[in-house]
Amino acid sequence: MTGEAGRLGIIAGSGMLPVYVADAARAAGEDPFIFPLKNEADQRWSGFDHAVISVGDMRQLASLIKKHDIKRVVMSGAVKKRPNFNEIHFNLRFLVKLPFAVKTLLSGGDDAVLKMVIQLIEAQGCRVVGAHEIAPQLLAETGPLGHQAPNEDDRRDIAAAMAAAEALGRLDVGQGAVSVGGRIVALEGVEGTDKMLERVAELRAEGRISAKRRGVLVKLCKPQQDIRADLPTIGQSTIDRVAAAGLAGVAVQAGRALLLQREETLKRADAAGIFVFGLDLEM
Amino acid sequence: MTGEAGRLGIIAGSGMLPVYVADAARAAGEDPFIFPLKNEADQRWSGFDHAVISVGDMRQLASLIKKHDIKRVVMSGAVKKRPNFNEIHFNLRFLVKLPFAVKTLLSGGDDAVLKMVIQLIEAQGCRVVGAHEIAPQLLAETGPLGHQAPNEDDRRDIAAAMAAAEALGRLDVGQGAVSVGGRIVALEGVEGTDKMLERVAELRAEGRISAKRRGVLVKLCKPQQDIRADLPTIGQSTIDRVAAAGLAGVAVQAGRALLLQREETLKRADAAGIFVFGLDLEM
Repeated sequence: MTGEAGRLGIIAGSGMLPVYVADAARAAGEDPFIFPLKNEADQRWSGFDHAVISVGDMRQLASLIKKHDIKRVVMSGAVKKRPNFNEIHFNLRFLVKLPFAVKTLLSGGDDAVLKMVIQLIEAQGCRVVGAHEIAPQLLAETGPLGHQAPNEDDRRDIAAAMAAAEALGRLDVGQGAVSVGGRIVALEGVEGTDKMLERVAELRAEGRISAKRRGVLVKLCKPQQDIRADLPTIGQSTIDRVAAAGLAGVAVQAGRALLLQREETLKRADAAGIFVFGLDLEM
Repeated sequence: MTGEAGRLGIIAGSGMLPVYVADAARAAGEDPFIFPLKNEADQRWSGFDHAVISVGDMRQLASLIKKHDIKRVVMSGAVKKRPNFNEIHFNLRFLVKLPFAVKTLLSGGDDAVLKMVIQLIEAQGCRVVGAHEIAPQLLAETGPLGHQAPNEDDRRDIAAAMAAAEALGRLDVGQGAVSVGGRIVALEGVEGTDKMLERVAELRAEGRISAKRRGVLVKLCKPQQDIRADLPTIGQSTIDRVAAAGLAGVAVQAGRALLLQREETLKRADAAGIFVFGLDLEM
């Protein structure tokens, strides 16, 4: 497989997703090369060939891609901090796109930035593939994924939060929205899903969100997003925060969201009486 | 004036706005009757005829409206907590609208709830008037209101945040959005403008928002909102938080936003090098 398709490179941000992708790749007979991102990656990579790179260092990435004959690249994990201008290093292929790249880094939403990074990597002669292509077992399926299922109130909240998440996605702001009793109470910005859920928990504790209605979190792809990067992801920490926020559950789009540590995550959801639901949406 | 138009009632939530409205009414020869809202109003009302009421107590409000011959009512100030079902007390006129009212209270955005409250008050034979009709001097005018004016970068941020605030308003979620370097970084939900700005300050401190771009706050009316309630409001605390978030300024719609403690607020903005700008939008 390595011979025909070239070696697989995995750019690793924070969280467990890069580990699952790397393990899945190895299980499929690949010998992945890992690029843990400096100040972002938070897992140990001693079991894999790896080289730490800085987020803005396209020059080093390009040189390592060439040196290790990498032909496919997966981007996985979260990146909290965008590079400043003085942290961006480039090669000649990158140089022609520099003004566009700097503008996007400064003004674009996450989706615009990720599309740019995909273009830059592919300009190095690599193909960018999605984490879900390497680890398809992480994709959420249709319907209730654990023991709980949304009731009628929850379904109304799902519909409301979906409409909000879609509007948010079109603006390239964030992927998540929370509805409680049919009312949108929080939208995800740069702070991310976890921080938004902590905010909901605080508003609930202050009595600013009804204690009598549970509510749901919906995370959706942005309508225009390249699904090779930044698919909505849920894991154990999401479930813990959904529970702390007093929500009834979380809904994602089946086939367009990743469920990490599936068994543990669903066990934790079941124990907390929280549903995890895969929405069957028309493409 | 009292004779012809009936006595003016002022429902007072938190913050200074109710005080300005009451002072402006008195200056115009009115003898306003104040309804400070229990657990919400935070100013002293000893200088005015007043009676504290609970947020959900339409029955008491209706009875006081009748007793004091109140014919016009202003709703002013913030209300953080919606009443629970067991805190709602009603009279006969209210009873016919109860199922609709409860549903709106539970599921509606702020605008839906305020429209309902307006309907309920007007069902008592009162006219609801806007705070800006009583205190028109509070309305923001067109252009730079202090010494600072937005530069070209700021104008781009204003345009981006306006588009986001409009989308947010259509969803009846919130009025405010923050753009930094053309990128939307935060949208206001139930937490309100101040908390959103504190979040932006935190994201800035963590390096998750560029330190090199300032950015702006835009607060807009929701497209469908009744402007007699909940006009976007800015005051000294807004300016302090805009400064702490490292933003360049704040823009509101001229004629559709209230500027509280005008002199002190603009003095503070000038001292911090922050612009306060009234947008001239086509209605």
